[in-house]
Amino acid sequence: MRYEELTIEGRNAVMEAFRSGKTIDRLFVLDGCQDGPVKSIIREAKKQDTILNFVAKERLDQMSDTGHHQGVIAFAAAYEYAEVEDLLKNAEEKGEPPFLFLLDGIEDPHNLGAIIRTANLAGAHGVIIPKRRAVGLTATVARTSAGALNYTPVAKVTNMASVIEDLKKKGMWFVCADMGGETMYRLNLTGPIGLVIGNEGEGVSRLVREKCDMIASIPMKGDIDSLNASVAAGVLAYEIVRQRLGAK
Amino acid sequence: MRYEELTIEGRNAVMEAFRSGKTIDRLFVLDGCQDGPVKSIIREAKKQDTILNFVAKERLDQMSDTGHHQGVIAFAAAYEYAEVEDLLKNAEEKGEPPFLFLLDGIEDPHNLGAIIRTANLAGAHGVIIPKRRAVGLTATVARTSAGALNYTPVAKVTNMASVIEDLKKKGMWFVCADMGGETMYRLNLTGPIGLVIGNEGEGVSRLVREKCDMIASIPMKGDIDSLNASVAAGVLAYEIVRQRLGAK
Repeated sequence: MRYEELTIEGRNAVMEAFRSGKTIDRLFVLDGCQDGPVKSIIREAKKQDTILNFVAKERLDQMSDTGHHQGVIAFAAAYEYAEVEDLLKNAEEKGEPPFLFLLDGIEDPHNLGAIIRTANLAGAHGVIIPKRRAVGLTATVARTSAGALNYTPVAKVTNMASVIEDLKKKGMWFVCADMGGETMYRLNLTGPIGLVIGNEGEGVSRLVREKCDMIASIPMKGDIDSLNASVAAGVLAYEIVRQRLGAK
Repeated sequence: MRYEELTIEGRNAVMEAFRSGKTIDRLFVLDGCQDGPVKSIIREAKKQDTILNFVAKERLDQMSDTGHHQGVIAFAAAYEYAEVEDLLKNAEEKGEPPFLFLLDGIEDPHNLGAIIRTANLAGAHGVIIPKRRAVGLTATVARTSAGALNYTPVAKVTNMASVIEDLKKKGMWFVCADMGGETMYRLNLTGPIGLVIGNEGEGVSRLVREKCDMIASIPMKGDIDSLNASVAAGVLAYEIVRQRLGAK
């Protein structure tokens, strides 16, 4: 498995990559560029929920390896995403009740990498991330995961709320981290469980939150608002681990 | 309090900053530069345990705001460090048994910022960092701390092991995070406690480890070695919080 991020530059190459079905994580387009080919590329990017950034020429020049970007540079994850089904199979093969992480819009690649690392060490069977408004499996994520991406499957889904709905039908419970919930120590977090972590700034989206069975709060004694997203994920994941181990 | 990192460029300015007693967190010197003034600056940096990096001209040019770095750029924290005594006073004023974080060589500013954020929310009374081989309170740290630096005092010490020794005489206990220790749930982590977190790659140094009363392990089920340092700090800190709250 290769983790180097694939940089694709130039109009034909980028269009070709979209057509071939490659997972493009992020597309950079020259700000103000409005001609036909670029418009087609943007249309394709929107269809596939690719994160789209309009940037100045200097930024594109800086990112370019070849110097011939023609106003478009795309980044494709060299990493293959898993299916949600694979994550459940992973749990089944280990003979354990499923324990999944669902990340509702993590934007920082360092956070995503650290969370995948935590998922691996906490014994989770996989991680689910959304296609939209979230970072994908970039080279930084792979590096920050410290090798965990080799072991912990990551699925990318279009609609997180409907995936939760499906998994609930299969007997899973969902807990999301949010302020104003029940203190995590008081919740029963054993059994087949999905841990939902929200976006760094905005937390869990309303639609996803409404699908959750429980809202867990981490006790906060301090003067500021919230923990770093990857730290919060770690603290909650280990409360689940503690309860699963039956430690008192 | 201002958090912008102070960039000091040019030989006279950098030498002046050292002489005035400013805390220089990091010094960048043009690789191969060996003349008198630069040698004096390097000597001063070593005397004050400043992190020293020898870099290529391109890197210096990139970092330079003025374009006139003359081969040396220093970064000074605009933030004032506290004394260890202040941290204990903080606990005393709140009428709580002291709860301190001791970071034995955290190098990544994102980790340091996230840990200070965690320290604040877990109700710790302060953070102790070493002068050598560690990141200081840079602008990135301040930003990543999400405001926690405004509330949680950070002390910078020359000898972490002897500080632990002193604090033990005042009745504190020290637990460090390391593999091969006792599972954290089985340790008594209540009372006046110092949580020692090691370097990202190498963990806790031998000298510091030997001073600790307990070695705590986070249960690991996965395929890789260790959690991200800031996640590990969060998980352990919240085990201390749980025990202090008496949650079962």
